[in-house]
Amino acid sequence: MAAAAPIRFFFDFVSPYAYLAWTQIGPLAARFERELEPVPVLFAALLNDNGQKGPAEIPRKKLYMMKDCLRSAARLGVPFGPPPSHPFNPLLALRVASLPMTTAARCALVDGLFKDVWGGGGRGVTAVGVVTEVAMAAGLSGLRAVEDAKSAESKERVKRQTDEALTLGMFGVPTAVVGAELFWGLDALPNLERFLDGKDTLDPEVFEHWASLPASATR
Amino acid sequence: MAAAAPIRFFFDFVSPYAYLAWTQIGPLAARFERELEPVPVLFAALLNDNGQKGPAEIPRKKLYMMKDCLRSAARLGVPFGPPPSHPFNPLLALRVASLPMTTAARCALVDGLFKDVWGGGGRGVTAVGVVTEVAMAAGLSGLRAVEDAKSAESKERVKRQTDEALTLGMFGVPTAVVGAELFWGLDALPNLERFLDGKDTLDPEVFEHWASLPASATR
Repeated sequence: MAAAAPIRFFFDFVSPYAYLAWTQIGPLAARFERELEPVPVLFAALLNDNGQKGPAEIPRKKLYMMKDCLRSAARLGVPFGPPPSHPFNPLLALRVASLPMTTAARCALVDGLFKDVWGGGGRGVTAVGVVTEVAMAAGLSGLRAVEDAKSAESKERVKRQTDEALTLGMFGVPTAVVGAELFWGLDALPNLERFLDGKDTLDPEVFEHWASLPASATR
Repeated sequence: MAAAAPIRFFFDFVSPYAYLAWTQIGPLAARFERELEPVPVLFAALLNDNGQKGPAEIPRKKLYMMKDCLRSAARLGVPFGPPPSHPFNPLLALRVASLPMTTAARCALVDGLFKDVWGGGGRGVTAVGVVTEVAMAAGLSGLRAVEDAKSAESKERVKRQTDEALTLGMFGVPTAVVGAELFWGLDALPNLERFLDGKDTLDPEVFEHWASLPASATR
């Protein structure tokens, strides 16, 4: 029998919701005995390709999002604090977190980096020193990892992962993927849980019908 | 002692998430002994003013949203089926639902209209005949209501409600408002529930700090 499909967790460190979902997805994967595979992608590139704005680029939404994140972190009992600046350039962290390594090491590294961005660590992950230190704590050779992340291959790897996200139909982070099914955002975790539990009740016929409906008004 | 602030539910019939949240907000308001006041607004005008796209205007997001709505409806045990076309022009329904009437009548009317849009009624609410019939079932004089909805005053009323939504900081529907606090989307209901339960743990200092942070990268 084939092993159950892993949960692939597409994310960018820039997203506070990705951090909040990250704190929940590990226990959820363990509960359903699924492998968890973090996949770093560049959120800004998803926004560009979908021709949309990010929440931080819409002033009213930005303020609301901050409150919602703080409330959701408190509800989940998760430590939360913003990085020194936001939005910030996440490419160094994304590239280091995408280097070839075991899944266990990658999970430890992603966890450490997220803590410094959104978990109250407060240092952010734009500084080489911080990334080096977190990589070492995750069992990597920190300096080597930061050096490797500068290679053309490392840059291409994050780009490839981002392109795959778009091919899979993604428009935002975090998105958890199981097989071909997407679950977007912290708020989709209850639906993901039902899916893993074999209780997914999406009727393909109703979906196809809805997807085929015409618009009778546009802006 | 002053009565507890009501829950004001800002919505547009065009939004399936507004329908899903509508099915949940009544029992929630009753549980916390709050008045529930539906406030019809034009979602398209919120999008315009915030310079953003709606989910139905981003192809990948549109498909995802349909699946997510079907899954969320099944999870909540709520009847769900799309209207004959989508997006559609909601103005007639919004204007009728905004006419002066008791809160109880407005709730019955909004409920009836939502059922014909997203509750599997299947007729939508763009046809005068349907709106007339639903208005009558809610205890109004149906023909008179549809006639009244055409007046300049009726048009202005929906515009005023939409302007108030923007002033309050809204960018999407549904948004539940208690006092000055916004709770956006079906997914914010757990945070709203904690807020009503006196367990809101939003630390104003952390919020102010975050809101004052600089960006170190933009697209």
